[in-house]
Amino acid sequence: MATTEQSKFPKVVIIGGGFGGIEVARKLANEPVEVLMLDKHNYHVFQPLLYQVATGSLESESIAFSIRKNFDDQKNFTFRIAEVTSINTDKNTIDTTIGEMAYDYLVVATGSTTNFFGNKDIEHYAMPMKSIPEALNLRYLILQNLEEAVLAKTHEEREEYLNFVLVGAGPTGVELAGALAELRNHVLTKDYPELTKDQMQVYLVDFLPKVLGPFSEESSAKAKDFLVKMGVKVELNVKVESYDGKIIKFADGREIRTKNVIWSAGVMGVVPEGISKDTIERGNRIRTNNICQINGLTNVFAIGDVAAMITDETPKGHPGVAQVAIQMGQNVGKNIASIINGKPTEPFKYNDKGSLATIGRNKAVADLGKIKFQGFFAWLIWMFVHLVSLLGFRNKVVVFVNWIMNYINYNGGTRLILRRFEREALPHEFDNMPKSDG
Amino acid sequence: MATTEQSKFPKVVIIGGGFGGIEVARKLANEPVEVLMLDKHNYHVFQPLLYQVATGSLESESIAFSIRKNFDDQKNFTFRIAEVTSINTDKNTIDTTIGEMAYDYLVVATGSTTNFFGNKDIEHYAMPMKSIPEALNLRYLILQNLEEAVLAKTHEEREEYLNFVLVGAGPTGVELAGALAELRNHVLTKDYPELTKDQMQVYLVDFLPKVLGPFSEESSAKAKDFLVKMGVKVELNVKVESYDGKIIKFADGREIRTKNVIWSAGVMGVVPEGISKDTIERGNRIRTNNICQINGLTNVFAIGDVAAMITDETPKGHPGVAQVAIQMGQNVGKNIASIINGKPTEPFKYNDKGSLATIGRNKAVADLGKIKFQGFFAWLIWMFVHLVSLLGFRNKVVVFVNWIMNYINYNGGTRLILRRFEREALPHEFDNMPKSDG
Repeated sequence: MATTEQSKFPKVVIIGGGFGGIEVARKLANEPVEVLMLDKHNYHVFQPLLYQVATGSLESESIAFSIRKNFDDQKNFTFRIAEVTSINTDKNTIDTTIGEMAYDYLVVATGSTTNFFGNKDIEHYAMPMKSIPEALNLRYLILQNLEEAVLAKTHEEREEYLNFVLVGAGPTGVELAGALAELRNHVLTKDYPELTKDQMQVYLVDFLPKVLGPFSEESSAKAKDFLVKMGVKVELNVKVESYDGKIIKFADGREIRTKNVIWSAGVMGVVPEGISKDTIERGNRIRTNNICQINGLTNVFAIGDVAAMITDETPKGHPGVAQVAIQMGQNVGKNIASIINGKPTEPFKYNDKGSLATIGRNKAVADLGKIKFQGFFAWLIWMFVHLVSLLGFRNKVVVFVNWIMNYINYNGGTRLILRRFEREALPHEFDNMPKSDG
Repeated sequence: MATTEQSKFPKVVIIGGGFGGIEVARKLANEPVEVLMLDKHNYHVFQPLLYQVATGSLESESIAFSIRKNFDDQKNFTFRIAEVTSINTDKNTIDTTIGEMAYDYLVVATGSTTNFFGNKDIEHYAMPMKSIPEALNLRYLILQNLEEAVLAKTHEEREEYLNFVLVGAGPTGVELAGALAELRNHVLTKDYPELTKDQMQVYLVDFLPKVLGPFSEESSAKAKDFLVKMGVKVELNVKVESYDGKIIKFADGREIRTKNVIWSAGVMGVVPEGISKDTIERGNRIRTNNICQINGLTNVFAIGDVAAMITDETPKGHPGVAQVAIQMGQNVGKNIASIINGKPTEPFKYNDKGSLATIGRNKAVADLGKIKFQGFFAWLIWMFVHLVSLLGFRNKVVVFVNWIMNYINYNGGTRLILRRFEREALPHEFDNMPKSDG
């Protein structure tokens, strides 16, 4: 640690500056604690809008927020860029890339990563989209392949560059499919007059029989309908067998020639070393009790995508969505304060505020409890909700301007190739993390 | 080429999509020609605002404009991403990374690159800032070094990370120095409460005895005054001897320990292979006559930073500024049309509209002919001029919003480390350029 002062306040270490970790820190703002947040990046990503970065509608900086800047008025908050290499619950310490640190309370809020289900080829050749570098990499791939398509001399060659196969018809896949369909329908021939609309195809495939699995039947059916009307080829009950970078093969024998496979078919928790394997649930999530404590421990919590709160009411845990992470973060923040102040804790109760997914530039589906909307009105709700929840006034305005422009003319957006797409896993951003013997 | 059709229209090939190349293409919009523009990037950069990207005040996409999108309503315009490997003036062809191409008229508008005056160490260790990847690399370096400074355990170690030495007190160096001083004065201790203002130092050094060499004495003196008041250490008549990544040494024996040396002390033209060496002027620029034709050729032109129009009135050519490139581009566009239509050409006459440079968030110096302004009013003029000249309505609004936010609260801006700074020359963006036997 950079300082060797002993503090008389209990030290709360939060691993991860995502939706959950941010809320824990905020709830402890006026409590007699020291808060240390660690993240491998110095920013928080507003993930629901990542797909817009990937398809060139938004600048990446619009959806990423400096963690330091966000907490610069919280006196008990400290931030360090670091990766946690191991958690030592017996000693109440963690090992990190900037040294060993002690904690009084630890919150594991490390989120989730793409699940390729063990298929190494797919992991190598398919594109995930769960971070800004990944979304940008995808954008550059798309734009470069459009340039290559222009130069292609045969139909087969061109086809490879212009077929886009999205695996996983959850909100991410659906929103990406809609955005790609917009690109095809409204931008492609303007920017690339050498190409025709029919030459580009967008496929959305899923193992399950419906798009937007967790949504209502009504919203699910309407989303599929919107996509099909936009020209997306939606193929359900389809299992992907293999992908070698050129041809994706399905279990039923069919094949599609494509250099663009985007994988959003599964997630799994990011679990640091040192967490006992017998607490790991399906999807690589850490089992917790109803106040987010990791089994067997009283001062170590897990929240958000990496956690699985298995109870009678929630035998499979909670969905891996932002609202769950946010509410768990608030619950843990309040409970840690309660524990320190000798007050009783409160069990976590998820308040499902509903689900939203956008399809293209002016349609969405919304499940808000008993009320379900689809179409333009749902899109307005979607836009309002996202604007409100974005951190930071400046970014709200920039995102708003972008959306207005995009709406007014289909051609809004930023389709710039700012660096070459890299096939290999993105260079590890912090191979040589700042080191300290602190 | 992707098409083998013979066109009956003369073919104008423009190498470079910068300020000059864009104007040539625009002027030929309604002429009986085919225009082909080649650039190694698919975007045009508004270079005057690069320093704001480097210091985190602007998103990179705000100052980069998709070339395709910009010309999507010009029917005779085609764009390809390509690098020119050789010009064959005897055959009227060029060799490129996407094949050999013939031209009837060729415009070399390749611009300039950083001049390290042959010093290989400085080229390796110092940071240039003439492109978006370079500006972003600089941003990440600055932010990473601030994080390292927080972890540093000794004053010497911290000093290395927090000393910033800018070599070259032209507009680029001055504007960067002002922006870094703002970071130091208004943002540093908010984002990094572990550091104090005095720990960070910004040095601006130059070989010449004045800052902003080409500006008036009045503006030059006022710019220096503003910088000094902001805490920048301005050191003139100083020659840099060496830099090894840790210590920069000056000819007078002095040294500064620093990991941050930003080099904007010189530029040189980017000249493709095949241009006769005896036409190369000082600064690696191609000598042209007064209608921008390269000596000895009637159908090959050079404009902007890569050109040196040596005449009695302009014995050293013109300054390497955007207005020169823009006006030369317009001149060449008009003249090519005249030649084709059998009309007389017009000699180029530079209309010097004045010079502007900004210092910090609300001051600038402006030389507008006989009238010279300094201070806040000059800054308003600077902002207006830049907003107007930015291509593309959307980007004007985004940039404007950014500036307003930055002005209202010093803390506006985006200080995100989106990828690791890379010491080595940035990976070549298009090592494997799209290939075609076209």
